[in-house]
Formats: sequence, C-alpha cells, structure tokens
Amino acid sequence: MSNVFVNIALSLDGYMAPEGMTMENWDRPDYKHWAAKWGALMSWMFNQQYFREKLQVGAGGETGSVNDMVRYTFARTGAHIMGKRMFEGGERGWPEEAPFHTPVYVLTHEKRDPWVRPGGTTFYFVNEGPARALELAREAAGSRDIRISGGANVIQQYLNLGSVDELEIAFVPVLFGGGRRLFENLREPLPQFRIDRVLHSSDATHLRYVRQQV
Amino acid sequence: MSNVFVNIALSLDGYMAPEGMTMENWDRPDYKHWAAKWGALMSWMFNQQYFREKLQVGAGGETGSVNDMVRYTFARTGAHIMGKRMFEGGERGWPEEAPFHTPVYVLTHEKRDPWVRPGGTTFYFVNEGPARALELAREAAGSRDIRISGGANVIQQYLNLGSVDELEIAFVPVLFGGGRRLFENLREPLPQFRIDRVLHSSDATHLRYVRQQV
Repeated sequence: MSNVFVNIALSLDGYMAPEGMTMENWDRPDYKHWAAKWGALMSWMFNQQYFREKLQVGAGGETGSVNDMVRYTFARTGAHIMGKRMFEGGERGWPEEAPFHTPVYVLTHEKRDPWVRPGGTTFYFVNEGPARALELAREAAGSRDIRISGGANVIQQYLNLGSVDELEIAFVPVLFGGGRRLFENLREPLPQFRIDRVLHSSDATHLRYVRQQV
Repeated sequence: MSNVFVNIALSLDGYMAPEGMTMENWDRPDYKHWAAKWGALMSWMFNQQYFREKLQVGAGGETGSVNDMVRYTFARTGAHIMGKRMFEGGERGWPEEAPFHTPVYVLTHEKRDPWVRPGGTTFYFVNEGPARALELAREAAGSRDIRISGGANVIQQYLNLGSVDELEIAFVPVLFGGGRRLFENLREPLPQFRIDRVLHSSDATHLRYVRQQV
C-alpha cells in the first residue's frame, strides 16, 4: 500500500512560510523581508543537481546523498494532495507544465472540472474533505506514494487523521520570527514518530521520521 | 571571553515544556499527559552515563559522543542565568546540593540576599534586567562559558539582545500539541545562526548552531 508522506522545509523556529509572503506582497520582496527568508529556507534545494535540472534553473549542483533524496522524492510520488490556497498561488505561478506529473487532489469547496496540464499533471477538485481526497489519491497512486504537499493547515488535518506515515523535514538554520507554523492545531491522541534517518549538510539538516504503530 | 549558550531539549513541534506541566499539577502526572511527554523529551538524557552518575540516578548508561557532550556542557559552564519561574520551581524541587555548582543569576523583581547552597551553587537575585545579569555572569564565569538555562521567555530575551552565541538543541521526536514554545516573541533584526554540528542517536538529534557575525 502507498505510504503517505510530507516533505517540507522548516525554519529553525518552525515556520513553513515567513510572515508577509502572500499573493498581495508577491511584487514586494522587501516586505517584512519575506523573500530573503524564503530564499534562505530553500537555498539547499537550489543547490541540488536534480532540482536544477528539473526546474531548468541551470547546470551544475550537488550530486550527493541530499540530491539522491530529492530525486527519490520525485520518483516515489504517485499522487499529490494540496490545499486550495496553495493551488491558487500555484495556478498563477507554475509554468504551463506544472511540476507534479501526477494526479493532484485539491481540497476545496469550489466545484470545478478536472484541469489537465501538459506533462501528466491533472488537478482534481475534491469537495468531500481530506479522507475522501486520500481515498482518491490511493486509487490513483497505485504502488507509489502519496505526498501531502501543503499548506500547513492541510498537513495538520492529515496529522490529526493519523494518516501521515512519514514526515520529512529539511530543518534550516534561519529564524523567521513569524509566519505560518507547521505544528499547530494538533489534537490528542497525537501521532507518534520515531527517527528514521538524519542527513546533514552545511545548509540544512534533513530529518526523516516514521510513524510508530501504537 | 565567555561564550553565551543555550542547551535545551525541544519537542518536534517546538515546545520546551508540555501544556499542563505546572506547579499546580505537579502531583497529577496524568493531567494533559504532561509527565509522559516530559519523560519522552528527556529520556535521551537519562540514558547518559555522566548524567546518571551526576544525579545519582543509577549505574550504567551510554558512554559515546552524546555522553561526552553532556559532560562538556557541565564542565564548560562558569555561570548560569535563569528566570524567576524556573528558579521558583527548582527551589522546591532541587536537592539541597543544587545541580549547578556555579553562581546562578536569577532575573526577578524580588529583592533578596544571595542564597548559598552546598556544592558551590549561589543564587544571586538580579533586579536590573537581562543585560545586567549577563554582565555579572561574565565577571563570575572567567574563561568559562555562560549558560542561559531558561525558561523560554528568558532565552527569548537574550536572543533579542543578540547575546546568544551558541544554540544547542536536543530535538526529540515527540509531539506535545501545546505548551511553552522556545521560539516566540522574537524581534527584527533576528539573530543569524549556522549549523556547527549534528550528532544523532535513535532518541534525539543533537543540533548545534553558532551565531554568525553579520
């Protein structure tokens, strides 16, 4: 059966996104320093050869174990789940060939027909909640895994459902001081994780946790 | 000159202490599961030989690099700084020979004479704020280092003063869901840290960050 996983970057103070990083401030990178903070959070990724190649950022890049991890994350994923806000941001920002190449289930109250993009990405709009989206993602993913892409509130919903099997965090030594926290709104009984693997480099510590069956 | 450091354990969701862990609930370990959570946060420490010996917890324990780190943390410290609430909890809970063996500067509005304990610990009550407490701690520590012991709000004050040179975090894979967060109330300009060292074991990831001079 597919594993359900989260793979995100987190600031040292636990934020997925800095304060001020909104659609309204997209053209104001100095607003609350959001762009500098976001850049610090993601720079490890832009140094990876596989990512650079995939997003056509440029040649070169690291080819070590972090790069292998990035490549594996792309390869293992058979379906994505995301929230409405993340989709709406991406709808404006992604290239025509959206960077998923799998079915993507968008949690939303909006009724809308599937949106097929070149390159194998089709967005499906799910109105029946996170459990139903996960059911659809499982059907689509086959033996591959399901990535809960975000945002924070969507990941929190799946943590509260007890559905997240693997939590992969690139823990980056930058303080945001505010923004959207990953770990909030969690309810008892809380899921239990154990450390599965730690990779480290000079710009991020890659922590991988696996859910314990209790 | 002395380095100023923080050395604490943090839950995966960023808490130093779980919700419900208060003086009022000290005899109710089931209250909001605080004791089980606290135990999960600190269990790596109780497995270390040096800690077991120091606190007379029992024989045995690990003797590897984490144990060396614990030993070094004790050895390097020439003065401690803590908040009033941490002191008041400890005043009731510590053994007569309080576990510091250095001068301890307590940030408080209370005027009180120094309190000398057997074993080299003397508590000094500082009414003039965190900068003055640090000044006194520097004088006392000599060439040894100064540990900001906690709680969270005291660490935040020193982060905001830009005085924390080293941030050592035992990052433990337990979710608290609520409690006292380490990283809150931080102000711009935020201090900048780089990864200095990562040690990992099956029960905690020991992250060490050093402040970048900017």
